[in-house]
Formats: sequence, C-alpha cells, structure tokens
Amino acid sequence: KLASDNEWLRWIVSFFMGVFIGVAAYLAHVGVSNIMELKFDLVKDMMEIDIWLGFLAYFTCNTVLATLSSLLAVFYEPTAAGSGIPEVKGYLNGTKIPHVLKMKTLWTKLLSMIFAVASNLQVGAEGPMIHIGAIVGNGFSQAQSKEFGFKIPFLRTFRNDKDKRDFVTSGAGAGVAAAFGAPLGGALFSLEEVSSFWSTSLTWRSFFSCMIATFTMKLLQDKSASLQGLMIFNMGIADKQFAYKILEIVPFMIIGVLGGLAGALFTAINVRVTTFRREKINKIKSLRVLEVFIIAALSTCFQFWLPFMFKCKPDLNLVKPGNTTIIDIGEAKQFNCEPNHYNELASIIFASNEQAVTNLLSINTSTVMNNERIGVPALLLFFVFYIVFAAYTAGSGISSGTFVPMIVIGAAYGRAVGVIVTMMLPTSYDIDPGIYAIMGAAAFMGGVSRLTISLTVILIEVTNQLQYLLPIMLTVMVAKWTADLIIHPFFDILIQMKYIPYLEPNPSKEMKLLVCKHIMAKKPVYVCEKETLGNILKVLKENNHNGFPVVNNDNEKLVKGFILRTQLVMVLEKHSDVYVANSPITYSHMEYTTKLTWKLPTVHDFHFDPEDYADVIDLTDIMNITVITVNVEFAVSEAFQLFRTMGLRHMPVVNEYNKLKGIITKKDLLEKTCEQKYKDFVHQRLGVDQLLHEGDDDNKE
Amino acid sequence: KLASDNEWLRWIVSFFMGVFIGVAAYLAHVGVSNIMELKFDLVKDMMEIDIWLGFLAYFTCNTVLATLSSLLAVFYEPTAAGSGIPEVKGYLNGTKIPHVLKMKTLWTKLLSMIFAVASNLQVGAEGPMIHIGAIVGNGFSQAQSKEFGFKIPFLRTFRNDKDKRDFVTSGAGAGVAAAFGAPLGGALFSLEEVSSFWSTSLTWRSFFSCMIATFTMKLLQDKSASLQGLMIFNMGIADKQFAYKILEIVPFMIIGVLGGLAGALFTAINVRVTTFRREKINKIKSLRVLEVFIIAALSTCFQFWLPFMFKCKPDLNLVKPGNTTIIDIGEAKQFNCEPNHYNELASIIFASNEQAVTNLLSINTSTVMNNERIGVPALLLFFVFYIVFAAYTAGSGISSGTFVPMIVIGAAYGRAVGVIVTMMLPTSYDIDPGIYAIMGAAAFMGGVSRLTISLTVILIEVTNQLQYLLPIMLTVMVAKWTADLIIHPFFDILIQMKYIPYLEPNPSKEMKLLVCKHIMAKKPVYVCEKETLGNILKVLKENNHNGFPVVNNDNEKLVKGFILRTQLVMVLEKHSDVYVANSPITYSHMEYTTKLTWKLPTVHDFHFDPEDYADVIDLTDIMNITVITVNVEFAVSEAFQLFRTMGLRHMPVVNEYNKLKGIITKKDLLEKTCEQKYKDFVHQRLGVDQLLHEGDDDNKE
Repeated sequence: KLASDNEWLRWIVSFFMGVFIGVAAYLAHVGVSNIMELKFDLVKDMMEIDIWLGFLAYFTCNTVLATLSSLLAVFYEPTAAGSGIPEVKGYLNGTKIPHVLKMKTLWTKLLSMIFAVASNLQVGAEGPMIHIGAIVGNGFSQAQSKEFGFKIPFLRTFRNDKDKRDFVTSGAGAGVAAAFGAPLGGALFSLEEVSSFWSTSLTWRSFFSCMIATFTMKLLQDKSASLQGLMIFNMGIADKQFAYKILEIVPFMIIGVLGGLAGALFTAINVRVTTFRREKINKIKSLRVLEVFIIAALSTCFQFWLPFMFKCKPDLNLVKPGNTTIIDIGEAKQFNCEPNHYNELASIIFASNEQAVTNLLSINTSTVMNNERIGVPALLLFFVFYIVFAAYTAGSGISSGTFVPMIVIGAAYGRAVGVIVTMMLPTSYDIDPGIYAIMGAAAFMGGVSRLTISLTVILIEVTNQLQYLLPIMLTVMVAKWTADLIIHPFFDILIQMKYIPYLEPNPSKEMKLLVCKHIMAKKPVYVCEKETLGNILKVLKENNHNGFPVVNNDNEKLVKGFILRTQLVMVLEKHSDVYVANSPITYSHMEYTTKLTWKLPTVHDFHFDPEDYADVIDLTDIMNITVITVNVEFAVSEAFQLFRTMGLRHMPVVNEYNKLKGIITKKDLLEKTCEQKYKDFVHQRLGVDQLLHEGDDDNKE
Repeated sequence: KLASDNEWLRWIVSFFMGVFIGVAAYLAHVGVSNIMELKFDLVKDMMEIDIWLGFLAYFTCNTVLATLSSLLAVFYEPTAAGSGIPEVKGYLNGTKIPHVLKMKTLWTKLLSMIFAVASNLQVGAEGPMIHIGAIVGNGFSQAQSKEFGFKIPFLRTFRNDKDKRDFVTSGAGAGVAAAFGAPLGGALFSLEEVSSFWSTSLTWRSFFSCMIATFTMKLLQDKSASLQGLMIFNMGIADKQFAYKILEIVPFMIIGVLGGLAGALFTAINVRVTTFRREKINKIKSLRVLEVFIIAALSTCFQFWLPFMFKCKPDLNLVKPGNTTIIDIGEAKQFNCEPNHYNELASIIFASNEQAVTNLLSINTSTVMNNERIGVPALLLFFVFYIVFAAYTAGSGISSGTFVPMIVIGAAYGRAVGVIVTMMLPTSYDIDPGIYAIMGAAAFMGGVSRLTISLTVILIEVTNQLQYLLPIMLTVMVAKWTADLIIHPFFDILIQMKYIPYLEPNPSKEMKLLVCKHIMAKKPVYVCEKETLGNILKVLKENNHNGFPVVNNDNEKLVKGFILRTQLVMVLEKHSDVYVANSPITYSHMEYTTKLTWKLPTVHDFHFDPEDYADVIDLTDIMNITVITVNVEFAVSEAFQLFRTMGLRHMPVVNEYNKLKGIITKKDLLEKTCEQKYKDFVHQRLGVDQLLHEGDDDNKE
C-alpha cells in the first residue's frame, strides 16, 4: 500500500511524540500542584494568625501568578494566549496561521498555563495541552527547529502536508489524552473536533500516541511499575455496582435540557465579552494584562469571602456498615472552621479544580447527611460564580482552556439537581447525587462544545463508570439538541471570531442553489506552460496566491496543470546566478513535484538581470498535471465536498471547452460567503431560475 | 445545514432500528440458549443411563440441528449462508449484490444461525448479527417490503443512496453491539471494518443505534428495570484492582506474536478449504448439506470422546480468605465424573461458546490449584481441535460467524501461556491466567481480522477491564504486524474470493505510476444532449452500464453531463404510450435528478413504435451537470481517492479540449486490475518513461 511506505517510522515517531506530550502534561501537573500546595499552605498558616492576613496572602499569590501568566502570553508570544483549539482546528482545515506551531509558543503556553491555573482563575489546562500536543506533533514531523538549530535528516520524508497534518492531529489528541488520562477519548476527540481529514489507520496511530502519552504521564506521576488505573478523578471506591433506575432517566433528561440552556448562556456571555474585548481592550497590550489582574483580584475576593456566608458542618468521615474501607468523600476544607468541621462552599470554591471536581463527583454518599454534605444553596452559588467568571475569563490574555471549568460548572448544578431529587424521594430510593453530577458535567460540556462521542467516552474513562454509557449519552444528546436550537457551538464561534476560514463538515443550503460560476474569482492569475522569467516574477510579486493554474497559451487558456508558489520559487532558484543559497539549489524531480513545506527564499530575495526577463522557462515537467477542474455549472455543494474530502486549496473552473474561467479557493466556500452571495441575488429580486443563468455572459465570448 | 433537513426523522428511525436489532439479537440468544439447555439436559439424563446412549443423544441433536441449519441456508435462501460481512462491506463500498438486503435473507439467516450455533459447531452468532443489522437498516431506509406488501410514504425521503448506506452502516454496527453488548465497540466496528464512507454525525447516530440495540437486548434479557452492566462475559467479581506488572508486557508480546501466527494459519487453512469447496462441493447443493452433516458428526465425536482422556478433578469452589464473596470460577462440567468433581476438558469442549469463554477468561483464580483448574494439555488440545474445526467450518453451507470462535481459540492458548508463566514464577508474583486469556483473544482476533481500535474497545467493553487498555492495545498491534507480514486480512480475502469489486482505503503503489488513460475503458458508450429515442433504446439494450456520459454531439464529443440508466428509463416512461404503469408516470424535476433507488421497469418492458425512433428527446434538464471529469493524464492514485472519498461509480475521462476519451468505473480501479495493467507494461519491456507516454496515440487524432 502506498501509505505504508514509512509506516514503521511513523509508529516510532508516534511513540516518541506520545512520550514528549506525556512529559509535558506531567510538567504542567507538577508545576500547578506544587505552586498550589505552597500557596494553600502559606494561606492556611497566615489565616491561623489572622483572617485578613490570610486573605492578603491569597490575594497576592493569585494576582501575581495571574499577572505573570498574562505578561508571558501578551508580551512574550501572543499566539500563546487562549486555548489554541481554534488555531489548531483552522490549521488542520488547511489554513496556515503564523507562529501557531512554533516551539516558542509551546514553552510560553506551558508556563503561562501553569501560572494561570495555579492562580485559581476559573480556567483549565486541557485546552492548552491540545495546542501543546499539536506543536509537538508538528515538531516531530518537521524534525527541525530554528531556535535549537537541529535537523533530523531521516524524518525529512514526513515534511509534506499530509504527514504533518496527521502528526498534528494525533498530537492534539495525545494532549487531551494526557490531560484527562483518557486515551480513547483523546483519539476520538482529535477525530470528532480537531481533524478535518481522517483515515482509519490514522485513528489507530493516534490512539497509540494517546495511550503512550497517558501512560508516560501516569508512570511519572506514580513512579511505580504498577500500571493500574488511568483515571484522573477518583470518584471513591465502588462498594456496589451503581445501578440506576429506569425512571432516573427523567431527571437526567432535565439535566440535559438545563445543560443545553446553561451552555448556550455561557457561549452567549463569552461572545459578548470577546466582542467587547476585541474593540476596547486588545488594542493596548498593557490593558490586557490589567484586565487579567482585575479578573484575578475579583475572583479571589469572591473565593475567599463567599464561604463565610455558610455555617460550618461536622466532618463525618463515615465508615459504612458492612464495609471495611473508609468512604472517600473528597477533601473537605476546614477553612475558617474548628477542627473536624468543614466549610461546604470553601470545599469547592477555595480549592483547585481537581479538588472541586472530586468533591462534586464523589459517590457513595447515600445517607442523607452525606448527600447534603454540600447543600443546594452552596452548589448554586458556586455555579453562578463559576459560570460568570469562566465565561468572562475565556479568551483573555492568558493561556487557558475551558474543559475542566465546564466539568466543574456542570457537576455543580448536576449535583444540586441530584440532591433535590434525593430530598424529594424517600430514602429507600437510594439515589446518588454523584451520578447526577456526572450527568451535569456531560450536559454542560455537551451544551457548550456540542461534542458527542468523544465527550461521552472521555467522561466514561475519567470516571471509570462504564455502566453509565446510556444515560451519559442520552444526556449529552438532549443538551446538544437544546443548545443547537439557540446558538452555534462554542468553538465554531471562536473560529469565526478569529476570522479563520474554516470549512464545516457539510455544505450549507445556499451552496446547493449556487453553481461555481457564481462564487469563483473571475479573473484568475495564471501562468503559461512555457512562461517567460519576467512573467513569473511579475505573477509572484503582484499577488500572494499559493498556487496558479497553468494554461497552454494566453489565447486558448486551456487548463493543463497547476503549479505552486513554492515550485515557481524553486524554478527561480535554479535559474538564478545572483542569489546565493546556503543550501544546494538542485532539486530532484520528486522534490519539485511534491508539496514540500521547508523554508524557501521569497521572490523578493532574487535579483535577476532585466535582460533575462524574456527567457522562456518550460514548466511542463514541474507542474502538477493531476489537477481537478470543474465546469462553471458545477454545483457549489459538490465543489465543497471536493475541497473537504480531497483537502483541496484551489480549484480552477473551466467552461465546456476546458478554457480557464475562474478559480475557487477555500475562502469562496465559507458558509458566510455563500450565504451573502445568495442573499445578494435574492436582493436583486432575481428568482432562482434567473440565478441559475446569471453569469452566463462568460459563455457569450 | 444541508444534512440536517430530516435530522429528527433520522434519529427516530435510528431508535426503532436499534430496538428491532436488539429484539433480533434477543431472539437469537433465547433460541440458542433454550435449545442448548434442552439438549444438554437430555444428554445428561441419557448419560446417567448409559454413556453410549448419551453420545447417541448428543450426536443426533447436533447433526439434526446442523442439517436443518444447512437446509435453510443452502436451499431456501442461499445468500443467507456465511457471515454476510463481505457482502455488506461490498454493498457499502458501492457494489450492489442481489438478495443480500432482502427480508427473506434476514429470517433465513436468523433461523439458520440459531440452529448452527445450537448444534455445537465451532461457529458464532456475531457475523450473522452484523448482516441482520444491515438488513434491518436497509429495511428502514426503504420502508417498504414486497413480501409484506407495505410502504411507509414519509420515509420515502431516505430512499436515496447516501441515506440507505448510512442506515445500513449503523445497522451493521448495532448488530455487533447487540451481539457483544458493546455499543461503543459496535459503532467503532462499523466505522473501521464495514463502512467505506464516513462522517462524524454518522458515528454519533450509529453509536445511538448501537446503544439502543444493546439496551433493548439487555432489557429483554434481564426483564428488570435496573440497567446495570452491559457486559456479556462475566469474568468473575473483582476483589481487587487487577494490576499488572510492567514486565508482564513481555509475555503479552509473545502472545501477540503467537496470535499473529495462529491467525495467519487460520486464514491460510480457510483459504485452502474455500478454494476446494468452491471447486468440488458448492456446485451440488445436496453435497453442501452433506458436508455440514459430516463436519457436525466429526466435531461431535471429538467433543464427546476427547474429555475421556482427562482425569476428573475435585471441584474447589474456593472461598478466598478475607473476602466474603464466593469466587466465580465459571461453570465446571461434571460430565463423566462423580459428584463434586469435574472434567477439565469437558468444561470447555462439551459446552456452549459462552460457557467456554467464561471458563477460559475467569479471573481471581490466583492460587496454583485454581490456575491449573484447566491444565495446559487440556487447553492446547482444545486449541488445536477448535482452530481446525472453526477454520474448516467457516464458509460452509450454514449461516455462521467467526468472532466468538476467534475469542475462544485465542483465550485457550492465551490461558495456556498464562498458566505456563505462573508455573515458571514463584507464587508471590500473583499472576492471573485469566488476563492472559484476554490477551490471547485480542491477539488471535487481531491476527485474523486485523481490526485495531474496535477490537480493543470491544474487548474492554466485553470484559469491563478498562485498566488493560494499554496491554490489549499493544498485543493487538503486535499480532496485526506479525500477521501482516504473512497473509492478507481474513475479510479482505473473503471479499476477493467472492469476486466482489472492493476499493481499499488507500491506493496501491502501481496506481501512482499509472495515469487514467492506461486504465480507462477506451470506447465509452455515451448519449448526446439531444438524443433520438431509437438511440436511447439501443444504448440501454446493448449494455448494462448504470450510467452514461452526455456529450454535446457525435463529432465534438464535449462532455456536458452524466445520466443514469434509471433516469433514461424514466424518460422512456414519459414518452411511452404503450406501456401502462401501475403508478403515476409523471416525475418532478427533483425525482428525475436525484438518485432514486425505487423499482422501475426495465428497458425491455417498453414497446415503442419504430416510427417514433427518430423522435429527438432533450436530456439537458434531466442529466446531472455536476459531473467530475478528469484529464487522460490524471494520476490513477488521485482518481482512486476521488472514487473512494466522493463515492463515485463512474468518471468520464477527457482530453485537454474536454472531449470524451474514456470512462473509468470501480472495476478499473481494483488493486488487482491496476497491478496486472502495470505488469503488462513491464512485461512489454517498457520503462516507466515509456509507460507514461503509452496511449498517447489518442491525442494524435
């Protein structure tokens, strides 16, 4: 098989990629947890002296960390800000965005993310881990780094678009896998959310990277040879198979609807904030840092002072009758209480995300006392606080993700519903609010991200509760459907707001009504089979297109092939006497004709003698003759499918004699563009019938 | 979005599809287990009277059941024989095979499979369940049945190629899911093995069907409202988290290599048998039934008499110290032994597949005594017996699958390796042969089927051992790689041996060296835009192509569009005065131009007056103008990608003036065809360079 040429090498690279990403995830974990521990120890010591001293310590730590994080992401490497998911998705959809896959972005991202998470902002580490994974994947496929000055020659074979894309896809998946400890979920995530092009063999290789990344992370964390358990959230030891009754599907569905609504709300808030931020804040860098400082300061105040609204409760570290194991009920926080007592809100709000999730998801708390270990008022207050701050913070000048925040928010209201259901029913019903918290997390994540299969699998892997597959699935589905009625998916909106041209998986309705002549660029820049040096220079200099159709001559304009900008530059290198390259400037036919991604000089680096401008260069052997062209009457929806499934970037449009009439690029196929184009026609009071004949003037020539 | 037009309806249909498939799986389960129970009870009673009487009873039951099964599959509906997986795969790859998706096939298949499995042949029910699921999926998308004489009008919207394919895909997945109780594995299986065209939304819908099917099956089986547990094989109650040591990876890898070798052996035996069967047996139907009778007779003798080679062992239903639960060590068979004793070989060979698997996979047997509950000789004898009979039986005249047999074979040798490792190491190492049995099953299935991600997930779901993700994955990988060196995957070979044209996921090496003019059919049958009735009739009668390029006129032959045979037939209907249809013969433009799959008259049903033959019919409005054409110099590998990803069935090939030069269909793109084509050139001592110019005579016209 064609694809198996370097199959072994791909697997070896996937292995090392997994190890690297696992190490990165481990570093992030160690960084965050060590800083957190130091901080909370300090605050605790201070609080014992004086409450206000405690607050001061907490406030200082959080704001300093947040500001540091912001300084890195705003000043040092701006592409490191945000989660990086839209950028990676855009890249895999075929849009190149500068700096996104650079090593510098990786280090900045990692550090900024550690500081941000450690500062108790309402952010998570998983989004940045996806981006970091993608960068590692790209680094391996490139096997060279300018900053570190190394090049691995035998990996040069992967320096083409397809392999690069494949490695970036598996890297992103491995990032999720390592962050959540969910290898299968990671692989499915990269499939469902990140990648635009997919193959079965890639899934398997991606799954392998995910597995190795998770495994590396766990091995470093446990430092033991025992490989048991990959779960990141310990929900407590199961002393029974948690069965659910069929009627519990009803509250689960309610949680689903609420999750969809809350998810839509979250997205709506964030859209408003991002628009505001783009107009008022993002233009001045120091303002961005200041914004982060203010968020951190406010959030810290709430985190510290809200718990004082709640009374202390006695900590019942219950031992269940008939069982020798102590029930793990999470880490209740003493905070302002006397020994053996805990503050219910502090247990979730004055804590790391992991502690909060552990407390919210804890099962086995089936006595009424334990069910109300964190009461409904505390849960709802926490929910409101967290959703507002998380929705506001996402997209500010730090490197941060929204995955764990989504879990926290969802688990909070889900548990609240669970506790309410418990209180409404007699105790004999034996209902566990921890399960409702899982459903809440599923619903809210579904409502925001509209992920389906990967989300379900991640939650199963994270909680190790395989028997909840059906209810989790149904909840996710209901949440997705509810939110779909209200607003676009979160990541899609982010991509739109970042102006990244992105082709959705399916064509829109308008595309079915348009044909290619309606959307194509009508005066395409082209070169001839035998072209003069002067014209080549002109064409390259006067526009920044990535490729050009090759036609037989200026009169007939029959499409013969396609040539890339890089290929034309290589042609120039060959004909240049003046330009002195530091690398040999002879290329094999293979190198000419494959889409290489290495660094080449730009057209402005060449200085030819104008006397040579009339030299004729034969492009026949260099151009790609395997070019897909379509007729001017070809349906746009099918053209869209061609771009999406064949990974095209440009497509010449021809008339019935194969004469070049136009060119279509990805930007012409965006949903918005086509919608606008269609509306323009309707606005001109043209019926669909007329629409179909509009543009026919081209054929009258 | 375009795809969401009938999204709700699709989900509702998916739901009912899942329910139907779940019910079918339940019927199969009930059928098999009731017959089995009656049979084994009868044999036990008889054995208490006399051993020989017992044998007679067992022999009679098994042979009668097997013969019944064979009679159904050979005489009543021959497409019901075999697993049906190659046929379903072929259908989803775009090849229509008659009778494969008929209701009659479903019933025959179900009954034949129940009898076959109940007759203790070395076959499983999972393969047929995939086929049954696919038929149900097709039935829903069609929503009509000739035999039952019903039509559901509002589902007519799904009567197009894409929706039909999607429903068949999810149906097949749901079949696996219901058979194994593995919803996620089922969805991934339909993705990895069955489908040729794929989308994220389909995965999710498919997952939903799988979930509903599994759930229905389980609900019917348990008749309780508790939804706990979906696992089909109870491995025993876990009294600890089964950790494995990192060094155990070594024996796991050995199991992987052995699995690859054994899988290749299994495939090789089956290929020989199938070739022999095709030449000597399949021509005479009664011979096919006789063959099944002989297999059943021989297998029964071995099953009954082999266990007498082994001594009886005392049945230690051990209660482990420190634990109050009785350890489930499977169902040891008393057979010829005195009470409280069991026969180790009979426990696996004189038993249903489920009992055998339960015994082989049982964990918690960590004392030496329990580890040797089934000793290495018994395991290896069983392995040899089972692999020979399973490899021989697959493909004979019954409806049967090979999935559970693969698990049984793999688990047998895996457990043998586990027991050997246990014996070699001190008892303190605490190694569980049950885990080795899982690895064996994974390795053997990987070696035969080369499935990867779906196999791993199915095994995880079936055994509920999420912590073994990594070792199972590595084992599957090693087994796959080993077997890949020796022989093609089992199902690929089956497809080839059934002469089903099938496009693999990736193009072969030869395709990269060929261009379209080398493989196209050079004298394509075409019609003109304005064509005479006589010519249309002639074209339709003289060949059985499914579609024809439409050109402007006979001289220029510029490709303007493409028209399907069905569309031409509809045109004839409209122009026919003689033919009286029982349905209205006016079609909307939509109906003309979509690819419909309903029943139409054939060309031979029409009788036109030869005087009308000169009537000119304008095809412009009916033909599909969105046709993909490629140049004669277009690379075959890319043409292959177009067919594979866009689901094409025909593609006109044109020269640089858009003049029709040839046509490519799926058959031209088969690996074998291209390989042969390429070899022909090499044989003629033409270099690649010459190869690239061969066929250029076309351009000299």
